[in-house]
Amino acid sequence: MTLLAKTIQEITPQDQEWRARATARLEQLSMPHWALGRLMDLAVDLAGMTRSLTPPVARKAVVVMAGDHGVVAEGISKFPQEVTPQMVGNFVNGGAGINALARQAGARVVVVDMGVAADLSGMAKSGKILDRKIGLGTANLAAGPAMSREQAVAALEAGIGVALELADTVDLFGTGDMGIGNTTPSAAIVATLTGASVEKVTGRGTGLDSEQLAHKVVVIKKGLSVNRPDPADGLDVLAKVGGFEIAGIAGLILGAASRRKPVLIDGFISTAGALIAVSLAPHCREYLIAAHRSVEPGHKIMHEHLGLTPLLDLNLRLGEGTGGALAMNVVAAAQAVLTEVATFAEAMVATADK
Amino acid sequence: MTLLAKTIQEITPQDQEWRARATARLEQLSMPHWALGRLMDLAVDLAGMTRSLTPPVARKAVVVMAGDHGVVAEGISKFPQEVTPQMVGNFVNGGAGINALARQAGARVVVVDMGVAADLSGMAKSGKILDRKIGLGTANLAAGPAMSREQAVAALEAGIGVALELADTVDLFGTGDMGIGNTTPSAAIVATLTGASVEKVTGRGTGLDSEQLAHKVVVIKKGLSVNRPDPADGLDVLAKVGGFEIAGIAGLILGAASRRKPVLIDGFISTAGALIAVSLAPHCREYLIAAHRSVEPGHKIMHEHLGLTPLLDLNLRLGEGTGGALAMNVVAAAQAVLTEVATFAEAMVATADK
Repeated sequence: MTLLAKTIQEITPQDQEWRARATARLEQLSMPHWALGRLMDLAVDLAGMTRSLTPPVARKAVVVMAGDHGVVAEGISKFPQEVTPQMVGNFVNGGAGINALARQAGARVVVVDMGVAADLSGMAKSGKILDRKIGLGTANLAAGPAMSREQAVAALEAGIGVALELADTVDLFGTGDMGIGNTTPSAAIVATLTGASVEKVTGRGTGLDSEQLAHKVVVIKKGLSVNRPDPADGLDVLAKVGGFEIAGIAGLILGAASRRKPVLIDGFISTAGALIAVSLAPHCREYLIAAHRSVEPGHKIMHEHLGLTPLLDLNLRLGEGTGGALAMNVVAAAQAVLTEVATFAEAMVATADK
Repeated sequence: MTLLAKTIQEITPQDQEWRARATARLEQLSMPHWALGRLMDLAVDLAGMTRSLTPPVARKAVVVMAGDHGVVAEGISKFPQEVTPQMVGNFVNGGAGINALARQAGARVVVVDMGVAADLSGMAKSGKILDRKIGLGTANLAAGPAMSREQAVAALEAGIGVALELADTVDLFGTGDMGIGNTTPSAAIVATLTGASVEKVTGRGTGLDSEQLAHKVVVIKKGLSVNRPDPADGLDVLAKVGGFEIAGIAGLILGAASRRKPVLIDGFISTAGALIAVSLAPHCREYLIAAHRSVEPGHKIMHEHLGLTPLLDLNLRLGEGTGGALAMNVVAAAQAVLTEVATFAEAMVATADK
């Protein structure tokens, strides 16, 4: 059996009994019933995922998957492709947004070269990034498949491998991305898997003007009509209109879910990866926590399709895993509510009138 | 000059020059323009409040003001009044929601007896709470003024005093409350100061059913018609339909703003305190950060009146300062974005096409 097939097979739903135990305790806490709202909902999820009333969340890691995109040849991004490896260097040097927010949250940043169109072997050899390069960027999805089906499987399995390697030292995962042009494949994925129109799911990315946005819509439509990805086959969608870092994110989710670890999903690109992962293994949805709602208009459609309500809504549109890092504090807070707050009986506080 | 008048006089607006300096740096960070959205808006506010490009936020404290309310005689709460001192004990023992969330955020919890209807001198003598008791609970606001004008001033000045005492060791304040029945005076305050109808601003508090909610509306209307608080005179509103802990919160805000310290405003009761503070010293609004939108329907009306957009919306309705503690992480993250992220030039990353 392949690693991909084995991993998918190992993903089981949340445990209902642990959910019920957590709910029973939370209902007795020394406060009005369910007065900490979504923190308590999240605490129940954590118990169901981890099969524990003290869900481990202390060891945190944001995994930033990096890759390039042949579709940049169509002029769909404001930034030149060289920014992808430059930003990988920025991550390694600790100067990017994700570094600041991960430090604040007490999380490690793990950078993975899934397919950057530059030689990053120096950084890989010195152990600063993980080298899981599938290729020097994808092919142009507006002209044909972004990658072969074999490459898509290899990229998914690389992501699974990263999750499994980290799983012994990480309790809580966050997904992150870097890849100039990657809102384009992400929009193509959400349009294919949800049936939403390309216009509705295509946004300004790093800052396109209205004319450039209209062009991006045309490019995505061309990609979909050239490739005709099959919405019933997530692997086909990933190969034809996806990206190496999106595959890495999907693989990370599958691997983490197979080890019953909660995964915070960041923005538009990360959630495209989640759509792929859920299309391959529907139960992995139960290990996902939507960190935030980004400015990209298609993000809301992704969340609705996944049945997830994001924790934060702060007009973020950076990616890198920044929203996930920020939401790690909320997850830690939810865990603290479950594990540290006294019940009415423990605190000797009178309860409400019936 | 009284402490209250002196404090009000010392509150100045945010500094526009420091705001501009922060904006200039944030616009150069190695990311698409303003891609961290509200974190960046908040970083500008922090710079404007503190007059610094490295706004101090590391030393955090949630100040929980506790007081009782004579209006509980009207049957407006599900919980008996004895829960107020019991919960003060729970705070002191570290078992309440605020303790768990403050620990997670790295914040101290400072509990202040502003007017609990019980003898808490034991806890005060052992240094576990601050004794600023104005009385053993307010009078019943449905029958007459909740307190005298002199008591209102004394309670405000007590809150100011707490802020000034803490200001040398605290960078970031959060407001919190405990007081059975205190959504009733809070609703009366917001109705008076914003002109909104009592029906629109009155909620279920700790869990009233529809019949009990209708009764609460009647009680609040009675309080307003008996007292006729003057919306142009915040002190009159506070005295006639407020509470000792609400006054303490308002005073804390005034004191913190006079020392140019950011203050996270928690839920419905804390924001009622903020309405009083802003009515007395409009500039103090510029030191407020709305932590979250609570389930109480009147909270949104308060935020709109203050011109503040809350950071979080997680169905919280506990009070105690819990939403503020949770949002302290967001403030710390905003500060980290301003102080730790490299610019394009520093990181040697290419910028966007013009």
